[in-house]
Amino acid sequence: MRAIAVRRGESTPRVVDVPKPTPDTGEALVRTLRVGIDGTDHEVVGGSHGGFPEGTDYQILGHEAVGVVEDPNGTRFDAGDLVVPTVRRPPGAGNEHFERGEPDMAPDGAYLERGIVGAHGYMADYFTSDERFLVGVPDDFATTGFLVEPVSNTEKALEHAYASRSAFEWEPESALVLGNGPLGLLTLAMLVERDDFERCYCLGRRDRPDPTIEIIERLGATYVDSRETPLPEVLDAHEAMDFVYEATGHAPHAFETVTALAPNGVGALLGIPSDGTVELDGGRIHREMVLQNKALLGSVNSNVEQYEAAEESLAAFPEWFTDELVTGVYGPDEVERAFETGDDVIKTVVEFDTL
Amino acid sequence: MRAIAVRRGESTPRVVDVPKPTPDTGEALVRTLRVGIDGTDHEVVGGSHGGFPEGTDYQILGHEAVGVVEDPNGTRFDAGDLVVPTVRRPPGAGNEHFERGEPDMAPDGAYLERGIVGAHGYMADYFTSDERFLVGVPDDFATTGFLVEPVSNTEKALEHAYASRSAFEWEPESALVLGNGPLGLLTLAMLVERDDFERCYCLGRRDRPDPTIEIIERLGATYVDSRETPLPEVLDAHEAMDFVYEATGHAPHAFETVTALAPNGVGALLGIPSDGTVELDGGRIHREMVLQNKALLGSVNSNVEQYEAAEESLAAFPEWFTDELVTGVYGPDEVERAFETGDDVIKTVVEFDTL
Repeated sequence: MRAIAVRRGESTPRVVDVPKPTPDTGEALVRTLRVGIDGTDHEVVGGSHGGFPEGTDYQILGHEAVGVVEDPNGTRFDAGDLVVPTVRRPPGAGNEHFERGEPDMAPDGAYLERGIVGAHGYMADYFTSDERFLVGVPDDFATTGFLVEPVSNTEKALEHAYASRSAFEWEPESALVLGNGPLGLLTLAMLVERDDFERCYCLGRRDRPDPTIEIIERLGATYVDSRETPLPEVLDAHEAMDFVYEATGHAPHAFETVTALAPNGVGALLGIPSDGTVELDGGRIHREMVLQNKALLGSVNSNVEQYEAAEESLAAFPEWFTDELVTGVYGPDEVERAFETGDDVIKTVVEFDTL
Repeated sequence: MRAIAVRRGESTPRVVDVPKPTPDTGEALVRTLRVGIDGTDHEVVGGSHGGFPEGTDYQILGHEAVGVVEDPNGTRFDAGDLVVPTVRRPPGAGNEHFERGEPDMAPDGAYLERGIVGAHGYMADYFTSDERFLVGVPDDFATTGFLVEPVSNTEKALEHAYASRSAFEWEPESALVLGNGPLGLLTLAMLVERDDFERCYCLGRRDRPDPTIEIIERLGATYVDSRETPLPEVLDAHEAMDFVYEATGHAPHAFETVTALAPNGVGALLGIPSDGTVELDGGRIHREMVLQNKALLGSVNSNVEQYEAAEESLAAFPEWFTDELVTGVYGPDEVERAFETGDDVIKTVVEFDTL
């Protein structure tokens, strides 16, 4: 079968011919429909994130997938069921975090990640998966279901952010998303849908006309150009934010988030920066955190319940939004174009098959 | 009556003669027993924190008090009841945070603080207080009850820290307190008492022999000398910490806390630093927060429920602990000595009267 993989020593994805997988006991065989591409895939291709499966000299890419059960193989699914796979897998038996349904809370070394860390991904005509890590989705998710994974990451971040504010009566009204990439825009669409957030903002550094700015404004949110209004000036230029969602991976943003937060606000950090020294007004940031009860939370990955919540969020998005977000649908033989980036590219997807 | 106050333009506390207060409707008159002194009092005296009550040229100090109801004045208390007052007061009517019992979550400007911001404190023969801000305590709290206030601040920080980890199964085992001042030691004693924390550490920068190190070790905790083991090295020298409590007000500690945390750990920040630039490995700290689901929470002040929780914590302390912690009990005429600091001083208290 066809698979899109990166080979050891190379840094471009290519189509390889690999054997069709056979499901083990407890696993279903899934025919792949679509697999989304995100920043992590680019990092895996570039070699700065993740690692090859043990004993192989290639890694099949892709962790945002939707597919159709081809062979239920005794699992709870029926042939033809539409499913979305989760990302993390236990590296062996007896892993407490997986046993309690919280793979997203497993520490480094206590998980593999399909398509990222030590396990093949879903960018192939077929994949197999333990049924515990497959989430059934409705039939109308055939084209958009690959977005359940990124949306689930925000479901988790929001769940943790609300939990962190649950010891008092928190009434958020304003939210700021840092970053207008696909995750930033998906999150913005989620926040706009929530009754809680009456005013939403999204920070980027793009000139108009720009397709992401168009989406931001069509969602009813306000675009903040960080070149004109750096994060520490957002408070004065706009307002204090009850919730900030960081999806830039720009390290100063993690700390400057505090300066944009309203009293009792919380910032969720999801970007993954590389090493680098940051100089900041640490005294002010520390003091504001204390005297104004502010919180910062890191958040990575998601669990099955958060996938299920993501299903609902995705279903509530207006159709134009996912249409505008997905700027390219490519066949496996067009992999090079699928991985191209540019100002007119928001989110691309590789389509292996249709329903 | 006698009161200990700081006068406008001065920076030493002194005994002043002021009229005995008369309780308004809804207020009780309280005869003061003891009032503790903490770092905030020193900052108020020095003029770097807080502000005088409107229209006065002196401020009565003190926010950690215990006293006896002298005149219940129609409140729910009886004459002779032992009470501890909370710190924050509404600056006017219609304050939502006070109405819902969460004065600790009121933003700057939406509260006064007795003895600190815009309101007279408790360091006087008598004080009055709205009954809503008086917490009844048992008779055996006559000498130690002034510690309910600082302990309640940690109750709040712990409540918020646990809330922030409530979206998953958090099983903390190790805790590190930054700072071996009175608040650090009180917190250490609380953590040691909790079943959750099997191993507790306290970071300071004192040479042996030292009374705080003796307390740390008698509590069964491990002393960490930050001159030998700076915070970012605690992980390698000891272990990763599930909970870190910052009580130093040293701005780099707020961010370096992340490097000492275990995956899924949380740091509570309570110190109040002044402005100052901090240079740090921001990329690593940001990345660790995200990939390891770490959290940082600022926390200030406390509510009535947290005072009630503090009552229980204080009752559980071994007697030797409070004996060793309180290194000086002074009459109002010894105010100068009460405010003296030094390596042999941990916590001092001004005693106006006894039961």
